[in-house]
Amino acid sequence: MAILSALATEVLIPVAGVIGIAFAVVQWVLVSRVKLSPAAAAAGGSKNDYGDYLIEEEEGLNDHNVVVKCAEIQNAISEGATSFLFTEYQYVGIFMSIFAVVIFLFLGSVEGFSTKSQPCTYSVGKYCKPALFTALFSTASFLLGAITSLVSGFLGMKIATYANARTTLEARKGVGKAFITAFRSGAVMGFLLASSGLVVLYITINVFKLYYGDDWEGLFESITGYGLGGSSMALFGRVGGGIYTKAADVGADLVGKVERNIPEDDPRNPAVIADNVGDNVGDIAGMGSDLFGSYAESSCAALVVASISSFGINHDFTGMCYPLLVSSVGIIVCLITTLFATDFFEIKAVKEIEPALKKQLIISTALMTVGIAIISWLALPAKFTIFNFGTQKEVSNWGLFFCVAIGLWAGLIIGFVTEYYTSNAYSPVQDVADSCRTGAATNVIFGLALGYKSVIIPIFAIAVSIYVSFSIAAMYGIAVAALGMLSTIATGLAIDAYGPISDNAGGIAEMAGMSHRIRERTDALDAAGNTTAAIGKGFAIGSAALVSLALFGAFVSRAGVKVVDVLSPKVFIGLIVGAMLPYWFSAMTMKSVGSAALKMVEEVRRQFNTIPGLMEGTGKPDYATCVKISTDASIKEMIPPGALVMLTPLIVGTFFGVETLSGVLAGALVSGVQIAISASNTGGAWDNAKKYIEAGASEHARTLGPKGSDCHKAAVIGDTIGDPLKDTSGPSLNILIKLMAVESLVFAPFFATHGGLLFKYL
Amino acid sequence: MAILSALATEVLIPVAGVIGIAFAVVQWVLVSRVKLSPAAAAAGGSKNDYGDYLIEEEEGLNDHNVVVKCAEIQNAISEGATSFLFTEYQYVGIFMSIFAVVIFLFLGSVEGFSTKSQPCTYSVGKYCKPALFTALFSTASFLLGAITSLVSGFLGMKIATYANARTTLEARKGVGKAFITAFRSGAVMGFLLASSGLVVLYITINVFKLYYGDDWEGLFESITGYGLGGSSMALFGRVGGGIYTKAADVGADLVGKVERNIPEDDPRNPAVIADNVGDNVGDIAGMGSDLFGSYAESSCAALVVASISSFGINHDFTGMCYPLLVSSVGIIVCLITTLFATDFFEIKAVKEIEPALKKQLIISTALMTVGIAIISWLALPAKFTIFNFGTQKEVSNWGLFFCVAIGLWAGLIIGFVTEYYTSNAYSPVQDVADSCRTGAATNVIFGLALGYKSVIIPIFAIAVSIYVSFSIAAMYGIAVAALGMLSTIATGLAIDAYGPISDNAGGIAEMAGMSHRIRERTDALDAAGNTTAAIGKGFAIGSAALVSLALFGAFVSRAGVKVVDVLSPKVFIGLIVGAMLPYWFSAMTMKSVGSAALKMVEEVRRQFNTIPGLMEGTGKPDYATCVKISTDASIKEMIPPGALVMLTPLIVGTFFGVETLSGVLAGALVSGVQIAISASNTGGAWDNAKKYIEAGASEHARTLGPKGSDCHKAAVIGDTIGDPLKDTSGPSLNILIKLMAVESLVFAPFFATHGGLLFKYL
Repeated sequence: MAILSALATEVLIPVAGVIGIAFAVVQWVLVSRVKLSPAAAAAGGSKNDYGDYLIEEEEGLNDHNVVVKCAEIQNAISEGATSFLFTEYQYVGIFMSIFAVVIFLFLGSVEGFSTKSQPCTYSVGKYCKPALFTALFSTASFLLGAITSLVSGFLGMKIATYANARTTLEARKGVGKAFITAFRSGAVMGFLLASSGLVVLYITINVFKLYYGDDWEGLFESITGYGLGGSSMALFGRVGGGIYTKAADVGADLVGKVERNIPEDDPRNPAVIADNVGDNVGDIAGMGSDLFGSYAESSCAALVVASISSFGINHDFTGMCYPLLVSSVGIIVCLITTLFATDFFEIKAVKEIEPALKKQLIISTALMTVGIAIISWLALPAKFTIFNFGTQKEVSNWGLFFCVAIGLWAGLIIGFVTEYYTSNAYSPVQDVADSCRTGAATNVIFGLALGYKSVIIPIFAIAVSIYVSFSIAAMYGIAVAALGMLSTIATGLAIDAYGPISDNAGGIAEMAGMSHRIRERTDALDAAGNTTAAIGKGFAIGSAALVSLALFGAFVSRAGVKVVDVLSPKVFIGLIVGAMLPYWFSAMTMKSVGSAALKMVEEVRRQFNTIPGLMEGTGKPDYATCVKISTDASIKEMIPPGALVMLTPLIVGTFFGVETLSGVLAGALVSGVQIAISASNTGGAWDNAKKYIEAGASEHARTLGPKGSDCHKAAVIGDTIGDPLKDTSGPSLNILIKLMAVESLVFAPFFATHGGLLFKYL
Repeated sequence: MAILSALATEVLIPVAGVIGIAFAVVQWVLVSRVKLSPAAAAAGGSKNDYGDYLIEEEEGLNDHNVVVKCAEIQNAISEGATSFLFTEYQYVGIFMSIFAVVIFLFLGSVEGFSTKSQPCTYSVGKYCKPALFTALFSTASFLLGAITSLVSGFLGMKIATYANARTTLEARKGVGKAFITAFRSGAVMGFLLASSGLVVLYITINVFKLYYGDDWEGLFESITGYGLGGSSMALFGRVGGGIYTKAADVGADLVGKVERNIPEDDPRNPAVIADNVGDNVGDIAGMGSDLFGSYAESSCAALVVASISSFGINHDFTGMCYPLLVSSVGIIVCLITTLFATDFFEIKAVKEIEPALKKQLIISTALMTVGIAIISWLALPAKFTIFNFGTQKEVSNWGLFFCVAIGLWAGLIIGFVTEYYTSNAYSPVQDVADSCRTGAATNVIFGLALGYKSVIIPIFAIAVSIYVSFSIAAMYGIAVAALGMLSTIATGLAIDAYGPISDNAGGIAEMAGMSHRIRERTDALDAAGNTTAAIGKGFAIGSAALVSLALFGAFVSRAGVKVVDVLSPKVFIGLIVGAMLPYWFSAMTMKSVGSAALKMVEEVRRQFNTIPGLMEGTGKPDYATCVKISTDASIKEMIPPGALVMLTPLIVGTFFGVETLSGVLAGALVSGVQIAISASNTGGAWDNAKKYIEAGASEHARTLGPKGSDCHKAAVIGDTIGDPLKDTSGPSLNILIKLMAVESLVFAPFFATHGGLLFKYL
């Protein structure tokens, strides 16, 4: 048995969760010290020992008015985001309720709604709880997952809209102060999400155990509903938020920047509030739900595989909770890592931002490797058995440590490769920027080629992780490798959320009419944020690949499929159709963004043409109509792609059976990963190529600029094309992959019993 | 036994081939009646009973000079194309020679270069020829396939450069006359290629039989080299030609149309000759080699599967030759179909062109269905046995008819869907054109979404064909379904080749300074040509999917793999890496086009800036330097993507073994098909959206135009981005898929014996 007792495990997990939440609160308190009321801000200047002059003071501007204006704008953004999320949640709520009923009915029907206990599948000779109750608990954990995901996204948005104006105000004191405010706010979100995910899952397991008792098979089977709930919510959050933000962004840019030649985030642009709201509902709330979903699913995948292995059958609670223990250690490690960014060192210049964020990745990975080693030694027996498609596999604790570690390090490699291809410090983005010399067309050609190229190393990293972790511990190895990649999720989320906060901060500076030097600082933060956003997406996609493979393995086990043979036509047609799904999905989401953006463009043009004095700054734009266009479009347009993803496994499983469904899952996985990575990186590269030209930081960059030059116009076109790729269709694809896998897993008993109607009757 | 005797088969196949070649010669003679010397042309006007006035005569232009100028330009294009192809063939020749040695050494080593006969694998109790001789014959058929492909491409180019100026001259007499000239020339290429492919294959089989005698296993094993040779050549042809043509096209457009505001194909543009040469070496020679490769591979796949089934073991020659008989019938059917376009009806107006081409597809498919039914009834026994991964399957002749027919009709569906998404007569392209209102960015977003969407129905069509044909006749069913899709290849090639010929004709009209009314006619032909080119690519990709699946099946049989289980990590890593390869390949080819285009732009700009009087038409541009840039770029840049495709199966098979290689093939297949279809359709849609705005044929189109408007500029950017997608990376991908499969099949005995070194020693 393991060194760590069951009791110690029972204590350690919630303690880590509480520490994480406490840390988030501390960070929040620190952020809240930046006052948004004029008087306090003036006093706060000396109170916080900020010795630097404010730029406004240097330039003789009225500090009082600026602060008031910032607070106003922040309020407008926050209200817009809250109102959109409430509308979105209403529609999604209806869908979720219906789906909850579907889950209950489908799973309940497996044994004909019988309330009698059944012989267990894996613990031979024992009796397990009836399928009807597992249906009930699966439905409950589905709803719980959805609610946790919803709360995660909502809180993230609240924190971001609390922090954006504060970052703007801090930018007056220097780039370092602004960075710390933005990063701390990101950390609030990161820790809150990682900790609450862990705590809720932990409590759910313990509550369900009251009913299930010794039937761990049923217990962890019903827990998978948690992953499904989290991911379903994330899908709508990502797609809806993605369409919202990009419709507003593209619409605002096309008229404002291209036609009217006014700066980004200019308050005269009627779509500017919608654009800034979008960053919060798409990049923050959507991404929060997404990564929470990944985390929940990888935990569920590992738990369900463990429950049918020796941990589950021998009732080794500590071993069983190993996935949760890894996450607990992750929270502590990320806590220490965060201090490196906020307390141990201080950023003084723009060029230190990217290295500081990169250091976060390296430090968290290095520390986490030690953490995993310790917890593997403490929590795992020296040898244990994993069941894999009917065969058994002996695994040592060090072997399993290696599985987690390889996932963790593969994540770091993916992060670095993503950084290389999307940061304008390196040649790929500079080449793309250079291709703008010959216009938008070559810019797009080079950008697409860059995105395609950027998949090579991540795919090899994923392939090696899969091979090694599977060789060591079969599907459990892959599940814990995914968990390893996500174990530093708190840090990942912090550096990911920091980007949109900086973006918003820049917008507020522009709208509040602050000095262009503030804007330069927030732009520098934002450029680093584009790279970190791409890195975050890289992590999300890499982990999604591993998670969905693990879920796929669990599904196959539970559906009783012995082999998934590509040479069988049932599987092959699934494979090729599955590989097509990401294209279908992307077509929908991109078209949605395009159509919504067209509507937005027409409205913005209409306002410029009909509202007197708008261009001169004397007339006031009608922000609300633009907000409404984005809201309506995203609510209406998120349904078809959402339905495609949610219904495909149900239809395929019910009519074509588990073999074809296996093919669909594998096809969607191997094809979706590529599009997701290339779309995210292409978009990130275009955005930073544009920023590279705008910033003019090098000799080369200056030959391409300045703003408004032909090169810059070509770069803006690339950036606009990249918007839906990197923020709508790309990141939604990893949810597609995971969600179809976890849904198949949840419905596996139903498909195995009643599925394949078409082939049965043909 | 079948109704058709072996002797009748021996006669029927070469007779059909000879008829096809004779028909091609007749068409050529008809085209050659259009005289390119001034005197003859003037006389020819009445001789050929062309009563219409020539436009030049109406407008009082000097006919003599125009004809001389056309002849000059044609000569320049033809010389440029010939010289490029010779250079290309030299480099490819070296590569092919090395690869031939590799084939011989690898296959010879299977039995340690022993000259002793071996027990057969399938014909139990019999002895088959030694592996060393099969290595020798495989090498020979590889070289033969490569040479036939080379000749096909070269002849196609020769015909196209013979026909282009003649089409221009005929356009003076009306759009109908021009159409017939262009279409007849396409038919020359189509029939020559289909017939010579059949005849060479037939002769090769008969010659090899002199050595192999009763050992049909060895015979058809060595024949697969023919497919590999054809496809290898096609790869370099497509990639090299694709880079050549698009570097010139993009370069010419970016400076000429966008910067200097001169029309397309203006003789002042230094890249104009390179651009027109490119159409002939890329779209004609490259495509010819490509479709020949598909044809050769599908025949080889069907033959090799048949050879290890009851046809081969019972030595039923007619049954064995069924694939060749289907192709023979196809030639006759296409011959009749062609007459519908050239003799039975006459095109009088622009709007009749697209329907006429569409009718070609429908007629050939309908007639071919009857043809297949007849030949299936005549050539096949009522019942026969197919071997499939160790099991046996009873198939009836009507079942096999159904397999061929479903492939044929799936091809038609793919053709129609492609037409719907790429023709500007329908809403998808019109929507893309409409999105140009808001600039290039929305145009690109809508275009990408269109491409993604256009994969849905083709993939379902392919999936249904695979499922049905596999259910009926296992892998042999899939192989003959592919053959069915390609059975109307002569018509497919004719309507495909007609496009670039019209494109060239327009270029010659512009360069010769002919009336803009001529240009309008050739533009109308060209717009229909864009759609047919997309249809042709749709066919090529659809058939490539089926062919490579059949080849994959044959490979698996021959390598002795029993199942390709996605759940095995060896297979899964192959699957995910295989799905990545099309991205890697596309990244290379798109980057190559981009870089070469940049060089071209610089050269063209340099000439405009330094050659006095170039813009005014008094100075002469230096065409040769631009031709050299395209040539050098394409020769240099075709090597890395070529090597990627050619070396991947060798490396994976040798180091990782046949299981991982199976995964790679399946992954590349399911992922590559999607990118190939979407890339071709996106590019075709952008091109036709641009043409839609230029032509201004509808109320809607006129609100977007005219040429030079902002909408049109946005459309030109889309068109330029689409160029490498639709003419370089997209169509090359289907060769990637097929080539890796056929290469694996050829090397299967080696991999099965010596492969998987890495896993063996780890």
